[in-house]
Amino acid sequence: MSEFDIISEFFAKQHCHRKDVMHGIGDDAAIVTPPANQQLAMTTDTLVAGIHFLPSAKAFAIGYKTLAVNLSDLAAMGAEPAWVTLAVTLPEINKHWLQDFCDGFFALANEYDVQLIGGNLARGPLSITAQAIGFLPQGSALLRSQAKPHDLIYVTGTLGDAGLALMHSQLHQPTPRIQAGIALRGIAHAAIDISDGLAADLSHILQQSNVGAKINVDALPLSTELLQALPREKAIELALTAGDDYELCFTAAKDQQAAIEKKLTTIKCTYTQIGIITKELSLELHHQDGKHYQGRTHGYEHF
Amino acid sequence: MSEFDIISEFFAKQHCHRKDVMHGIGDDAAIVTPPANQQLAMTTDTLVAGIHFLPSAKAFAIGYKTLAVNLSDLAAMGAEPAWVTLAVTLPEINKHWLQDFCDGFFALANEYDVQLIGGNLARGPLSITAQAIGFLPQGSALLRSQAKPHDLIYVTGTLGDAGLALMHSQLHQPTPRIQAGIALRGIAHAAIDISDGLAADLSHILQQSNVGAKINVDALPLSTELLQALPREKAIELALTAGDDYELCFTAAKDQQAAIEKKLTTIKCTYTQIGIITKELSLELHHQDGKHYQGRTHGYEHF
Repeated sequence: MSEFDIISEFFAKQHCHRKDVMHGIGDDAAIVTPPANQQLAMTTDTLVAGIHFLPSAKAFAIGYKTLAVNLSDLAAMGAEPAWVTLAVTLPEINKHWLQDFCDGFFALANEYDVQLIGGNLARGPLSITAQAIGFLPQGSALLRSQAKPHDLIYVTGTLGDAGLALMHSQLHQPTPRIQAGIALRGIAHAAIDISDGLAADLSHILQQSNVGAKINVDALPLSTELLQALPREKAIELALTAGDDYELCFTAAKDQQAAIEKKLTTIKCTYTQIGIITKELSLELHHQDGKHYQGRTHGYEHF
Repeated sequence: MSEFDIISEFFAKQHCHRKDVMHGIGDDAAIVTPPANQQLAMTTDTLVAGIHFLPSAKAFAIGYKTLAVNLSDLAAMGAEPAWVTLAVTLPEINKHWLQDFCDGFFALANEYDVQLIGGNLARGPLSITAQAIGFLPQGSALLRSQAKPHDLIYVTGTLGDAGLALMHSQLHQPTPRIQAGIALRGIAHAAIDISDGLAADLSHILQQSNVGAKINVDALPLSTELLQALPREKAIELALTAGDDYELCFTAAKDQQAAIEKKLTTIKCTYTQIGIITKELSLELHHQDGKHYQGRTHGYEHF
């Protein structure tokens, strides 16, 4: 099978044809028409076999997650996803693997009306890089640099579940918080997606916004599954440090509480206030009773 | 060194700041403003160690080529390059390697006013994926599907030099034919870049345009270096089959000869007419005297 046969048999069969895609897969480059008066958000993420997933992971889950981690980055900017390109490096052609991979990738892509417009297929150690592009009204991006002292700090969903899945050698299939990101435009000051662990990712907001934070670790949203599987102390540690949750962490002024409640409840996105932004530059983790948190805070390190 | 330290020390130091880049490296996604009334061309290409370059290849050359192969795809559409993202997978952090890689990448990026707006850094077997985005006036893309019977077939530059470099274990540093692609808007019917060998890449035009071609192999432009290094017959074979030349192959109506001469001479891009598009669907390779070419035509196969 040539590269071109594989592309037409597996990758060119998506049931999503956006009107703004003039030429998708099949030429030297894709040609798309960006919407008038919008900005574009662009992100890229790589999953490497043996690093980001076990060689035994299901191809469907790998395909799904390849797109999910990129859509999560768009969500953290408040962008509406539109197009994606995909660079797949494979040691050999395995038709079943390719079909399952594409099924997982397209399941999520179709759900968000995201069209695969191009890509690359190469021989080599298993690794996948996707790039996603989304739309944003001018100046509405949720940046890491805009947190303000006294902002409330929130997270969506529950934390630590991806870490628990990993302990069971399963590949977590995160739900990118696209609707939440869009809903938070004009409301949140700063946002980031939690891919490296809450403590590490919140630190990026603090650093870029030149502020600090106080986090109540007893307020962290933990799923029933996580609390059933682990002692509470260990569950909190996972929530703070395990990567791969892909929930959003965002900050907003106190007077936005009602707006957040209204917007996120409408789209059925759960959220929890976990702390407050401070002028002092440190990240302070404490329990409900005010005692300092003594556990680990170190998130995922790429090297 | 953390991922973030590496990015800020090496990748965030480009001397190119485009006005249409609102937020580059450093957030969940980059934010850019596309130009009004233009289409976007998007492409992605991967280079894998041991497949696309020898492990001993110079990092500068790898960095240069990573961008060059993507810009070449934009050139083949007639697009003007603007932004690039870069996903680098590395087995370990080697500062000298990273500096040389970035020097090569940015040397070319700065030449074409292309800004690196984001990327990903992961641990794993050495592999680099870049995605380039360029601009095009509405409807001006040079597609593979628009060749017409009686069109003249041209190639830019000389062919086979990349194949010769490979025989000497060197990494060819192609010049992306950006100016030529832009100059050919509205003049050429179809275009492709020669990355898999002329015969294989021309076949894509023929297939997508539903036409055939007659090529005079004695008309193929061969460099003095190639003819000095190899017997003429072997040089022709390399020109037809060796990938990695990254010249453009394009077709145009006969009455565009003067326009092509004028446009390509102005930008000092050499070009050669090598054949003609036919109604008959076959690709026929012949010598100057009309005899059939008997050599190999098989290009690079990805699997």
